[in-house]
Amino acid sequence: MENDVSTLIANELRKAPEVALFSHVSPDGDCLGSMLALGLALKKLGKKVFLYNPDAVPHNLDFLPGAEKVQNELPHPLPRTLCFVDCTDLRRVNLDPSQLPEHTVILNIDHHISNLNFGTINWVKPGASASGEIVMNLIQELGVPLDQEIATNLYTAIVTDTGSFQYSNTTAKTHRQAADLMESGIDFLHIHHCIFDQKPLAQVELLRRGLTELKLYAEGQLAVMTLHQEDFEEAGATEGLSEGVINNARSIEGVEVAVLFKEIEPQKIRIGFRSNLWFNVNELAARFGGGGHKRAAGCTMETSLDEAKRSVIKAIEEEFNIGRGH
Amino acid sequence: MENDVSTLIANELRKAPEVALFSHVSPDGDCLGSMLALGLALKKLGKKVFLYNPDAVPHNLDFLPGAEKVQNELPHPLPRTLCFVDCTDLRRVNLDPSQLPEHTVILNIDHHISNLNFGTINWVKPGASASGEIVMNLIQELGVPLDQEIATNLYTAIVTDTGSFQYSNTTAKTHRQAADLMESGIDFLHIHHCIFDQKPLAQVELLRRGLTELKLYAEGQLAVMTLHQEDFEEAGATEGLSEGVINNARSIEGVEVAVLFKEIEPQKIRIGFRSNLWFNVNELAARFGGGGHKRAAGCTMETSLDEAKRSVIKAIEEEFNIGRGH
Repeated sequence: MENDVSTLIANELRKAPEVALFSHVSPDGDCLGSMLALGLALKKLGKKVFLYNPDAVPHNLDFLPGAEKVQNELPHPLPRTLCFVDCTDLRRVNLDPSQLPEHTVILNIDHHISNLNFGTINWVKPGASASGEIVMNLIQELGVPLDQEIATNLYTAIVTDTGSFQYSNTTAKTHRQAADLMESGIDFLHIHHCIFDQKPLAQVELLRRGLTELKLYAEGQLAVMTLHQEDFEEAGATEGLSEGVINNARSIEGVEVAVLFKEIEPQKIRIGFRSNLWFNVNELAARFGGGGHKRAAGCTMETSLDEAKRSVIKAIEEEFNIGRGH
Repeated sequence: MENDVSTLIANELRKAPEVALFSHVSPDGDCLGSMLALGLALKKLGKKVFLYNPDAVPHNLDFLPGAEKVQNELPHPLPRTLCFVDCTDLRRVNLDPSQLPEHTVILNIDHHISNLNFGTINWVKPGASASGEIVMNLIQELGVPLDQEIATNLYTAIVTDTGSFQYSNTTAKTHRQAADLMESGIDFLHIHHCIFDQKPLAQVELLRRGLTELKLYAEGQLAVMTLHQEDFEEAGATEGLSEGVINNARSIEGVEVAVLFKEIEPQKIRIGFRSNLWFNVNELAARFGGGGHKRAAGCTMETSLDEAKRSVIKAIEEEFNIGRGH
């Protein structure tokens, strides 16, 4: 089945003299790396290639070979063959399907389980660690050898979406692909630096503030961090910059559950949950109107910070009492 | 040559009815994982195996299959065949060579370039990411299949010494071995948790204190952190716990050099240097009587904290002026 889809997509691309490639808003290493790798491969096959992203390429990703060719405006006229990479639906590229001419062929390549299968041909593979993993297979199916430029893009895609082979989506296949990419002459240390060592100063300041109010509960199994509205203001940080902060609580010795309370507004508290080995934070978040996964979830409560903390900490402590001896 | 050595060592092990395995003081995931993997493999070949480490197995490594068999006392009498794993010299296991009976066969398996080649047969391979990488080859040479227990030990060894495939010692081969280990039914998420998510609370507190005095110089290219004597005292932290702190400065956007000043005593300042892409901190540290590598180095200055900061920051700023346009 998968082989059929890869052959179908490869055949469509072989037939097309011109292909427009699309990647999603707020681009990351996977969508850009996948799009650029496929674009470079198609150029080697003599295609005219158009690369589109609604946003600018982030500064830390402008080292990606081909990044300077990415356009923020749609081509006129649109080519007949459009290929979407790492996009769950067309809105992820700010595209209105009614804009598309008839007979447009939409190729949809993605690894998100939430993909809407909006394509004429859909290669959606939730088991893949990154869209880059699927694109690497496609490039091999197209018979284009991995050169350093293509490999740099694909390695960036994979390392971004696996957090350097640490996330649960990593498989033996991911490592085999990484091995092949390492042999294509990439500078993997430079890639890691560009992806992982680019923290804005405001993010580090937010971490410092989060650590200032770090508290342990439930005999050290629960670590709680709090960021007040004034922490964001005084650090000059958006909410987005608080994303990694919670991991500093999760990675403390003996901690099973980490919670980060973020006061977005005086009566609007966003709460992030992480767990390490057994605590189901998805179920916990659901009790407060949120959701997510077993080991990472979140919710928003419209109440005071104090009240949100009281009720959430109580719920987790009760759960620990039930789970005792687990 | 390497194949010869692996065959020689495999033959010695095949001949021996009884083998004592040794790993170094302050054991880590590589030395323990490598020793335990080889021990399990030798048991499958019907050998009597003795596992030795001068220290206790750290709590976060006691999940390693076979860890409960590690002894802190030497066996009496010593078997004729001794195998040292990940040890640069015999002192790393607190062993006095004069204690060893004549005709002892010493097998020396290591990946440190500083290894003293103290063995009867030495398999020292500095290109290997971990001793676990060499031991995995040896186990395959011995014809023992990788089961889950052996694979758990080997994966732990490799992931420890490569920082999850991020350090410069990682190669295509490392990834191919990781792929084979992933297919042996290991719980790699649990391993990552045990290796990387075990920060003592005092370490997190030390990080908070380090961030409090974080300062940027040289137009944001130099990040400086300071830990005073009272920071260690009040956090209840030993100097060892400050090891990862400097990476929080190194990973800030735009930073090329990170420096951590640690006031060990009022007139004894230990200084850690890290760089990202081009700054040679080995040369820098050498100017202050220290040394290390291009991207990680250190020195100790017998002067006041203020004086140490003044002279080191000045030296780096001058270097940036020379290197401008680099």
